[in-house]
Amino acid sequence: MEYLQQTFSVKFEYKVFFTSGLFDLGNTCMEDFLLDNATTESVKKILFVVDEDVMKATTGLADKIRRYFSIHKGAQLVPDLILVPGGESVKNNEDHFHNFLNKINEYGIDRHSYVAAIGGGSVLDMAGYAAAVAHRGIKHIRIPTTVLAQNDSGVGVKNSINYFGKKNFLGTFAPPVAVFNDDNFLLTLGNRDWRSGIAEAIKVSLIKDPVFFEWLEQNAEALTARDMEAMRYLIKRCAQLHLNHIASGDPFEKGSSRPLDFGHWSAHKLEQLTNFEVLHGEAVAMGLALDTMYSNLAGFLSAEETQRVIALIKKIGFAITHPLLEVASDDSPILVGLNEFREHLGGQLTIMLLKRIGEGFEVHDIDTDILRQAGEAINEYAALNPA
Amino acid sequence: MEYLQQTFSVKFEYKVFFTSGLFDLGNTCMEDFLLDNATTESVKKILFVVDEDVMKATTGLADKIRRYFSIHKGAQLVPDLILVPGGESVKNNEDHFHNFLNKINEYGIDRHSYVAAIGGGSVLDMAGYAAAVAHRGIKHIRIPTTVLAQNDSGVGVKNSINYFGKKNFLGTFAPPVAVFNDDNFLLTLGNRDWRSGIAEAIKVSLIKDPVFFEWLEQNAEALTARDMEAMRYLIKRCAQLHLNHIASGDPFEKGSSRPLDFGHWSAHKLEQLTNFEVLHGEAVAMGLALDTMYSNLAGFLSAEETQRVIALIKKIGFAITHPLLEVASDDSPILVGLNEFREHLGGQLTIMLLKRIGEGFEVHDIDTDILRQAGEAINEYAALNPA
Ligand SMILES: NC(=O)c1ccc[n+]([C@@H]2O[C@H](COP(=O)([O-])OP(=O)(O)OC[C@H]3O[C@@H](n4cnc5c(N)ncnc54)[C@H](O)[C@@H]3O)[C@@H](O)[C@H]2O)c1
Ligand SMILES: NC(=O)c1ccc[n+]([C@@H]2O[C@H](COP(=O)([O-])OP(=O)(O)OC[C@H]3O[C@@H](n4cnc5c(N)ncnc54)[C@H](O)[C@@H]3O)[C@@H](O)[C@H]2O)c1
Ligand SMILES: [Zn+2]
Ligand SMILES: [Zn+2]
Repeated sequence: MEYLQQTFSVKFEYKVFFTSGLFDLGNTCMEDFLLDNATTESVKKILFVVDEDVMKATTGLADKIRRYFSIHKGAQLVPDLILVPGGESVKNNEDHFHNFLNKINEYGIDRHSYVAAIGGGSVLDMAGYAAAVAHRGIKHIRIPTTVLAQNDSGVGVKNSINYFGKKNFLGTFAPPVAVFNDDNFLLTLGNRDWRSGIAEAIKVSLIKDPVFFEWLEQNAEALTARDMEAMRYLIKRCAQLHLNHIASGDPFEKGSSRPLDFGHWSAHKLEQLTNFEVLHGEAVAMGLALDTMYSNLAGFLSAEETQRVIALIKKIGFAITHPLLEVASDDSPILVGLNEFREHLGGQLTIMLLKRIGEGFEVHDIDTDILRQAGEAINEYAALNPA
Repeated sequence: MEYLQQTFSVKFEYKVFFTSGLFDLGNTCMEDFLLDNATTESVKKILFVVDEDVMKATTGLADKIRRYFSIHKGAQLVPDLILVPGGESVKNNEDHFHNFLNKINEYGIDRHSYVAAIGGGSVLDMAGYAAAVAHRGIKHIRIPTTVLAQNDSGVGVKNSINYFGKKNFLGTFAPPVAVFNDDNFLLTLGNRDWRSGIAEAIKVSLIKDPVFFEWLEQNAEALTARDMEAMRYLIKRCAQLHLNHIASGDPFEKGSSRPLDFGHWSAHKLEQLTNFEVLHGEAVAMGLALDTMYSNLAGFLSAEETQRVIALIKKIGFAITHPLLEVASDDSPILVGLNEFREHLGGQLTIMLLKRIGEGFEVHDIDTDILRQAGEAINEYAALNPA
């Protein structure tokens, strides 16, 4: 057979900066980045899209941004800051995506310009998708404002919107050119959103880093008391593990293994069934408890380590189970979810379990009976250890 | 400044196959590819989207495809073959894109399935874009049916649709998993589409391959007489040069240099101004003549080589100039186009010219006066050498 072989690699690079008061005039973190990436020929435009709830919660944010770019000239600010609703609705309603594309067109934002998005993971997902497809890719800067977005979703390479009522139906893999994690934004977060992001840190510690798990145990109280220094460390360590994982694995997920999705298969189903009333991190916390208990009952993880995991999840303030996660009959939602997940993976199930704290491994079968017992064991634990 | 550095590379690989009668039962080219990429767990689905004009022109195509997959089981055919209009209209009207996404959803095509597109560059661009964004990327097979798509657009890494009345406003860089060039499809092409694709071969020979240029000179008559063997060679050599260029350069065009766009800056403007009545290749042929003559008048290219280039373009049957390409006054369309192109590049112009046949180089300035003279010189040549 006659053919030509094409083979090439594309290199992606970006920095995740950690700072406080990104738009304080004396803070040159962003300006330095823009100057480092300037070209001699022309000044690049920068178009901001901002999460409405963040704009409301952060006193004087719009003025600060405008003042910053009136002094710092690394990029030319489009004075019109685009506001979009925060939360899942920005991904659910296609209009927000189209309106934003419209602004990109109206202000002549091209491949030599920047789109900068400030907000939670939802706003970053929508804005990142628009930036990825307009002109086949505009340089995209992320400024995440939730714990989840700063330690997980905002530092990664994916974006998306929902479509046909399906979560993340449209999207791409498109790395940002820079991420700026400003811890000041976290001050205005509600308690549930503050806590929710901690679930990803527990997750990644369980599969990758036992020392980080111990640190989480030791700092659980500080974290629930909203200690900023503890949160700064948590975010940085979690982001680091996430970045390493992406770089060392399969960044654009061409294979079907998804090691970072420990605890996520049941969580996704639970979020969906509760119409996202249960937050992602809250669902993941319960998914982690379930898959940890399963690991124990299936004979892989010691009872002592199992207890430590579940105790930590509880101590952070998470609920450890939900009626929808129980195997009550053959058509319980969780079994439907397991089947959907199998189909989603193209036929063969791949689920991560724990061997010990800090080390995951993959299995291709889940025993329904053990899954039922795991649910029951968590219920018992919850009953014996009320909040 | 505190930061984490992220760096990784993503490898892309695909083959461009050359065959005749892709869906003949005895032709195992596609089946072999599918089997090579099969996994043990499940059979992958394959959804076809077909250019309506190709479907009409190719006797029994639908039946052939269905028969092929009833015998060969490398993938499971979705029996509904999706028909879309051929030509630019499939990129202009967003409905075609949305309807196709709808089919992808309806038939449960996911990241483990294939989308296969049969058609000209327009259909491949729309289908490739849909495949790239659905589920963050479905495996995409291209089956190009025009000369241009087989030797240029279809073997590359870009896709797009038009939006806000702007050519290619939405799109991505997303390599296919395989390309099947079946020369039988070329038999039903109109003469203009047959000829149009030859412009890209002339272009790439001029900047990369003097031996290929000589081959084109020697085979100009065979090519215009629709000799299949000559066309097969042309397509393969042009595709090869195109693939090499992508692999050795900047595949996702992060920089601003576009060496493969020799002759294209004025061509894009001409296509647009004539509402795409002048075909891409026809416009490129004129753009090549103009930039070649400019190279000569600016003192870079010898008169003898200039004559050879223009003579070849004419011999293939192309018009070598168009009233809209003349510099008549300071606001002639071509000067507007030059300025738009400068803006599009972010301020600094980069245009490829010729040093000799087979070797291009870049300049950052175009002298309006020389450009006017080049237009006049081509007009004179045309007057002295009527078709
Ligand atoms: N791209 C990825 O790789 C990836 C990974 C995981 C999750 N996600 C997505 O992220 C989304 C969830 O993101 P999230 O958890 O950040 O929540 P979110 O973006 O939905 O925000 C939750 C709420 O908090 C508000 N908010 C955000 N920052 C605030 C602040 N500093 N102060 C006050 N209010 C603030 C938002 O406006 C919103 O109302 C989901 O859509 C999920 O699919 C994406
Ligand atoms: N993605 C890229 O890198 C890239 C590069 C160059 C051009 N393009 C795009 O390609 C498009 C042009 O593609 P094209 O030149 O292949 O033309 P086309 O796809 O517009 O097709 C031209 C006409 O020929 C018909 N046709 C196609 N194959 C046929 C066949 N075998 N027999 C009979 N009729 C047939 C089509 O239905 C259409 O009516 C433009 O939209 C251009 O922007 C893309
Ligand atoms: Zn998660
Ligand atoms: Zn071209």
